[in-house]
Order: sequence, then C-alpha cells, then structure tokens
Amino acid sequence: MAAISHKVHVALGERAYDILIGPDLLDHAGAILAERFPGRRFGVVTDIEVEKAQLPRLRRSFEKAGLGFSVITVPSGESTKSWQHLQTVVEGLLAAKLERNDLVIALGGGVIGDIAGFAASITRRGMDFVQMPTTLLAQVDSSVGGKTGINSPHGKNLVGAFHQPKLVLADLSTLDTLSQRQFAAGYAEVVKYGLIDSPDFFEWLEAHQAEIFSGGPARGEAIARCCAHKARVVIEDEKETGVRALLNLGHTFGHALEKDTGYSDRLLHGEGVSIGMVLAHTFSARQGFAPGQDAGRIAAHLHKSGLPTTLADIPGTLGSTDTLMHAIAQDKKVSRGALTFILTRGIGKAFIEKNVDPDAVRTFIEDMRP
Amino acid sequence: MAAISHKVHVALGERAYDILIGPDLLDHAGAILAERFPGRRFGVVTDIEVEKAQLPRLRRSFEKAGLGFSVITVPSGESTKSWQHLQTVVEGLLAAKLERNDLVIALGGGVIGDIAGFAASITRRGMDFVQMPTTLLAQVDSSVGGKTGINSPHGKNLVGAFHQPKLVLADLSTLDTLSQRQFAAGYAEVVKYGLIDSPDFFEWLEAHQAEIFSGGPARGEAIARCCAHKARVVIEDEKETGVRALLNLGHTFGHALEKDTGYSDRLLHGEGVSIGMVLAHTFSARQGFAPGQDAGRIAAHLHKSGLPTTLADIPGTLGSTDTLMHAIAQDKKVSRGALTFILTRGIGKAFIEKNVDPDAVRTFIEDMRP
Ligand SMILES: NC(=O)c1ccc[n+]([C@@H]2O[C@H](COP(=O)([O-])OP(=O)(O)OC[C@H]3O[C@@H](n4cnc5c(N)ncnc54)[C@H](O)[C@@H]3O)[C@@H](O)[C@H]2O)c1
Ligand SMILES: NC(=O)c1ccc[n+]([C@@H]2O[C@H](COP(=O)([O-])OP(=O)(O)OC[C@H]3O[C@@H](n4cnc5c(N)ncnc54)[C@H](O)[C@@H]3O)[C@@H](O)[C@H]2O)c1
Ligand SMILES: [Zn+2]
Ligand SMILES: [Zn+2]
Repeated sequence: MAAISHKVHVALGERAYDILIGPDLLDHAGAILAERFPGRRFGVVTDIEVEKAQLPRLRRSFEKAGLGFSVITVPSGESTKSWQHLQTVVEGLLAAKLERNDLVIALGGGVIGDIAGFAASITRRGMDFVQMPTTLLAQVDSSVGGKTGINSPHGKNLVGAFHQPKLVLADLSTLDTLSQRQFAAGYAEVVKYGLIDSPDFFEWLEAHQAEIFSGGPARGEAIARCCAHKARVVIEDEKETGVRALLNLGHTFGHALEKDTGYSDRLLHGEGVSIGMVLAHTFSARQGFAPGQDAGRIAAHLHKSGLPTTLADIPGTLGSTDTLMHAIAQDKKVSRGALTFILTRGIGKAFIEKNVDPDAVRTFIEDMRP
Repeated sequence: MAAISHKVHVALGERAYDILIGPDLLDHAGAILAERFPGRRFGVVTDIEVEKAQLPRLRRSFEKAGLGFSVITVPSGESTKSWQHLQTVVEGLLAAKLERNDLVIALGGGVIGDIAGFAASITRRGMDFVQMPTTLLAQVDSSVGGKTGINSPHGKNLVGAFHQPKLVLADLSTLDTLSQRQFAAGYAEVVKYGLIDSPDFFEWLEAHQAEIFSGGPARGEAIARCCAHKARVVIEDEKETGVRALLNLGHTFGHALEKDTGYSDRLLHGEGVSIGMVLAHTFSARQGFAPGQDAGRIAAHLHKSGLPTTLADIPGTLGSTDTLMHAIAQDKKVSRGALTFILTRGIGKAFIEKNVDPDAVRTFIEDMRP
C-alpha cells in the first residue's frame, strides 16, 4: 500500500513510536491513521504556506479514508510560536469538539511541530499527536524527540513541554515545494549529526551531497540515518540532562547570531548553525583540541551546499562583540564565570566543555569579524 | 522544629511526595524548603487577598532561612484561571530569572494552585513546584493529585497538565483568615469523601462537625483523612481513566448549577457540590438504587454546616430545565444518548453509572425545582 522506504523505531517504553519515511506518505496518511488509530478524530494544525502547498493532498487522503477532521491554520514563520497563536490553536481544537483521546496532527516545519505539539500536550490535559514534518529541518530534527514549545519575550523556546508524538510521517515529496534556501538550512542539521560522532556519515554526505539535493535515493537514506541518530540520543537522554546537549553543536554561536539578526530572513536557523559549526571547529582548533584542517573541510562542504560559513557571509551589519558575548552568556548558563560549549577534537568527536573562558571566546569573535 | 501534626505520603514512584499538615507550617516553610531543596530559588505565586492575609508570614520565614525568592501576584477569583493570567505568571517566573531546577510555590486556594502548578509545568518545559494551600477546599482536594490548569471560553479546566507537586504544606492556621462561607464550601468536599466509600468517616464528621468548624484538633485530623483518601485514589488512577471519577460525586449537578449562576458569588463551587450531592442521593433513591432516608440525613448535616442543599437555596432565578440539561450533557460526555453519573447505593456506596436515561434526569430536575 503506502510506500514506506525507511522505518525508525524510537524505543521510549510506553512513549515509544515509529518514524515512517517514504516518497508519498501524505497520500496514504488517511489509511495509515485509520488503521493505527481507529475511531478517532483529527485536528490538523498547519501554516498558510503549507496549507497551500501540501494540505490538499492530506485532505484527499483523509476523505478517502473517511476520517473526521478539522483544520486550524496559523501564519507562517517563527513569530507564530507565540502565546497568541498557542491560544488560537488550543481554542481551535476545543471549538472543533475534539476529545481527550482524539489526535492533533502537526503538518508543517519546525514551527508548526513545536506549537501544535505543545497545544496537544495542554489541551484537555494532554492529547496525542502525530508529526507530519514538511521541511528538511523538521524531518531530521524537530519532529523527533518530543521537545515542543513557544517563544517568550525572554528568549526562544522558554515555554513548552516534553511531549512525544505517537507517530512521525515524513513524506519526502513535500520537500519538493520547499525553497532551496530552506532545504539548505535543514541540511546544516544533517551535517551536524556527522560532525558530532559519525565521521563515516560525514564522508558519506561529502560523496552523496549532489544526490541528496537533487532528490535521489540518498535523500531518504540521509533523513533516515539522521532520525536514527536523534532517536538514539533521545532514548539515552529524553529530558536533556546530559548527552542530548551534543545536538547543540554549533548552536551557541548560531543562536547568538540569530538573535543579533532578529530571527529574521537575514539568517535562518540552519544558516546560523552552519556558521556556528565552522566557528566551533575553528575555536576548538585554536584551543588546541582539534587539528586545524577539519574546519576548512567542513566549511568547504557547507559552502558547496549553498550555506553561509563565516560572519562576513551574513548580510547587513553585525552587532558589537559585546552584544554577541551577551547573547552567548544568556544562551548557555554561565556557572561561576565559565561558559559551557560543545567543542570538538575533530570531525565526529564533539564533546561538552563546561569550562570555557569567556575572554578566549571574546578574542576569538574579534578575530573572526569581517 | 516545625509543628507537623500529620503527614501523608503520596506514593507515586518517581513522582512521590509528602503532604505535611500542621498548625503553623508557613512560619517554618523557609527552614523546611531550605532543608529539602538546598541551593534552589523560589517563585511565589499568590493572589491579592492571600498576599494580604498570609504572605507576610511566608516572607518572614523565607528571609529567616536566607532563601532567594520573588513574588508574583494575580487577582483573586475564578476568572484568574485564564490565558491572560497564565501568561503573566509564566513571564513573571522567567523575568525573575528562575532556572529549570528552581521551584514555584503556589500560596493560595485552588485557583492559585491550579494556575501556578500549570505555569510551573510549562515554564522552561517543566519546573518543580510546591503547594501551600490556604483554603479548606485546596487543603483537602485541589492541592493533592497533580491536576493543574486554566479555564477556556469552551469550559472549565479544559487547558492544563498533570503535574504533581514535590511537596504540599497545609498550614491549618491559614484557615483562620478565610471567610466562614468559603470554609463551609470546602467542607462540602470533606463530606464528599465520606459519602463516596467511607461511611465511618461520615459518622465521625457528624460527631465532630462543631470541633472542625471551631478549629479544634478534629480539623487537622479531618484534613489528614481527606488527603489520605485522595492520595489513595490518585495512586490507583493518576490520570483519571477509572475510579478517580468517583471524586466527582455531586459534581455533575453542581457544575451545571455553577454554570447557570455564571461561576459567580451566587454559588461557590463547594456550595454547588453540596446541593449536587443531595440531588445525587435523592435521584439514586428514586431510581431504586439507594434507601430513601440517606439523602435526608446528608442534607441535614450539610445544612447544619451552613451549606445550601436544595435548588430553592440558590439566590436569584434559576435557568430553565432545558438549560440545566444542556449543561449536564456538556459536562459529562454523552455516549449514544446515555449520561454518565456518579450514583450511590447509600452513604459510602457511590458508583459510576454510565447508562443514565436523560429523560429520567429531566423529570427529576423538574420535580426538584422550587
Ligand atoms: N523541537 C525541536 O526539537 C526543534 C529542533 C530544531 C528546531 N526546532 C524549531 O524549528 C523551527 C524551525 O523549523 P523550520 O526550519 O522547519 O521552519 P518553519 O516551520 O518556519 O518552515 C520554514 C518555512 O517553510 C515553509 N514550509 C514548510 N514546509 C513547506 C513545504 N513543504 N513547502 C513549502 N513551504 C514550506 C513554512 O511555511 C515556513 O515559511 C524553529 O522554531 C526551531 O526552534 C525545534
Ligand atoms: N486541581 C484540582 O484537582 C482541583 C480540585 C478541586 C477544585 N479545583 C479548583 O479550585 C478552585 C477553587 O478553589 P478555592 O475554593 O480554594 O477558591 P479560591 O482559590 O478562589 O479561594 C477562594 C477565595 O478565598 C481567598 N483566600 C484563599 N485563602 C485565603 C486565606 N487563607 N485567607 C483569606 N482569604 C483567602 C481567595 O483570595 C479567594 O478569594 C476552582 O478553580 C476549582 O476548579 C481544582
Ligand atoms: Zn538546530
Ligand atoms: Zn469539587
């Protein structure tokens, strides 16, 4: 029936679930859900762009399977992860008269996954939900692992819940309507998995990059390998008290740059991560942890993928080094003056370093400025 | 040190916690928390009335123990359980720079316990919290069991989380500043525990009612017995998929009446429950489940406690029977036309009946109208 090309199981005990990956899963989603969740109704949460590009397919497959469903649409973009839109989604689910054992569907990128998953976790004190990620970033990262939430004026993702989905359906063909720039941004997170602890995977990416970008079979394989990697980490450390922090490689620098550019079109999240990963490797080399040549090899691969790799690649004027340092200190809890960073001993050898000297970071940023 | 007169343990595995009951626990709260949660900071959530009546004591004991804390105050009353005030509390906790392993304190009645507990569960994806209930209702009911939440325009408590506290401190002397009317309303829930499955407790209440109301030693004992009862039910059915529903004895009728009177001063929650319990017993007798005399005995006890027991006791004009039936159908999910009610075979013999005929309820309400 449905063409499922890859399947990853997230073995979290009573919160276990499957990630199904395939070329046209949305067209079969109705049948899959009817079989896995008989007799339940569905509240589909999506954003206006995904509604245009992908909802018609889901709608048809739901209708074919005879499923009862309602659709709640919110605007596209990071600013949707707000109190206001959270309230819209939750009240929308209640207005649709969904019961506690009905399901919420998140159809979209990481923004929709985060807000719809969080809304599910607090509506009627907890409804089940299904992730249908439609961006590369969401397929390889945000749809797996159960972190959900919205942003606060005090910072990103500060309000939310750990709430695992009951199922993830990653339809590869949804990526065909995604912009090249968004695809590349998601690819930065793909590369990240190689850099953390899988040098073989990084090499494989170097060899298959063109095929992944053009949509050949390597695309599905890359996504499946990322999901398996993330699943492994999440099983080991569901609530991020330890090793899950490695997934933040490149993110401390990246978040500071995102903040500095106002979470705007100037720099997408994955673009910030791309620059951040290069900076983390360069900084690690300077600190004597890593060989010097890795940063260059990584930068070359990311650059070839259409991603920015240096501070000079960010359009517009960057804030002062003080401003960036302030953002870095906020992102990573400062304990007695020292900073926590994900550093590395080379490709595939990332580690958590809790004792980074802020002055060394400051000098480093000064040197890296264009 | 602290005068702890009773201790109840809620054995919920890794979510287990203690309920400590005593005459002056607020004065010792600082020392108790400093010992149980060393090195943590505290965000105290309270309402304006409790701030005036009880916060000064807590503040002194925190200062004596050298604890770091911030206070967030919201208005008093049911309308505080809203999106707007939830946002105020969560953003207040973030503005106070509380970290994920700091603690939220709910100092107040059920309204504060519900909103502060919910805020704790979603701030930084989950902070620990401590209940310091200051109403009789909160001490015997809402502070135990981990149900937290706010109201939606679609209905009461429709948005929330299951989030168990780490500790409950019930200070008996806080009840001295509570109005007689609020105390009596909470007492309806005390009586409820006897009616569900503890006829001995109901008899004991009949014998000790005056002492409970005047603040003698029976007050602490009654509260401890209620907490132990609720703890037992919660351990058996944490997420209310079965037997926990018995705690709703009197609540289906009660909620319909509360709704009809606009959740206003005309009828407090416990007052609605008082009338509801008498109605549930009278209806059960009519249906042939229970002996006729129990309803009268219960009504006499509640009436002596200063509580309303009949529809005629509600000030103002009641809505039509249709309106009440509509509220009843909304409160309890209607499955294929039948209603679910907590009925009874007599004092201490409540049971869940899923097959109640709506027409019988309608006729019954008609008969009961003044
Ligand atoms: N929960 C987690 O573990 C986790 C992990 C990483 C990132 N995130 C979050 O994910 C968010 C970023 O996710 P994102 O990059 O997917 O952003 P996004 O959800 O904003 O999607 C990017 C843009 O692409 C559009 N779009 C999505 N799918 C499309 C499709 N198939 N065709 C055409 N357009 C499409 C969207 O409307 C949006 O404009 C951030 O808020 C981040 O905090 C969460
Ligand atoms: N979570 C649960 O399991 C659960 C169970 C039952 C009820 N509830 C909820 O509890 C709420 C009702 O709780 P409540 O009856 O405690 O109401 P409440 O919190 O509104 O308190 C009643 C009034 O008494 C005041 N007050 C509280 N303590 C005082 C004190 N010591 N001295 C002087 N004034 C004081 C308050 O400011 C308020 O005006 C409802 O919202 C209900 O839904 C929750
Ligand atoms: Zn990321
Ligand atoms: Zn009640």
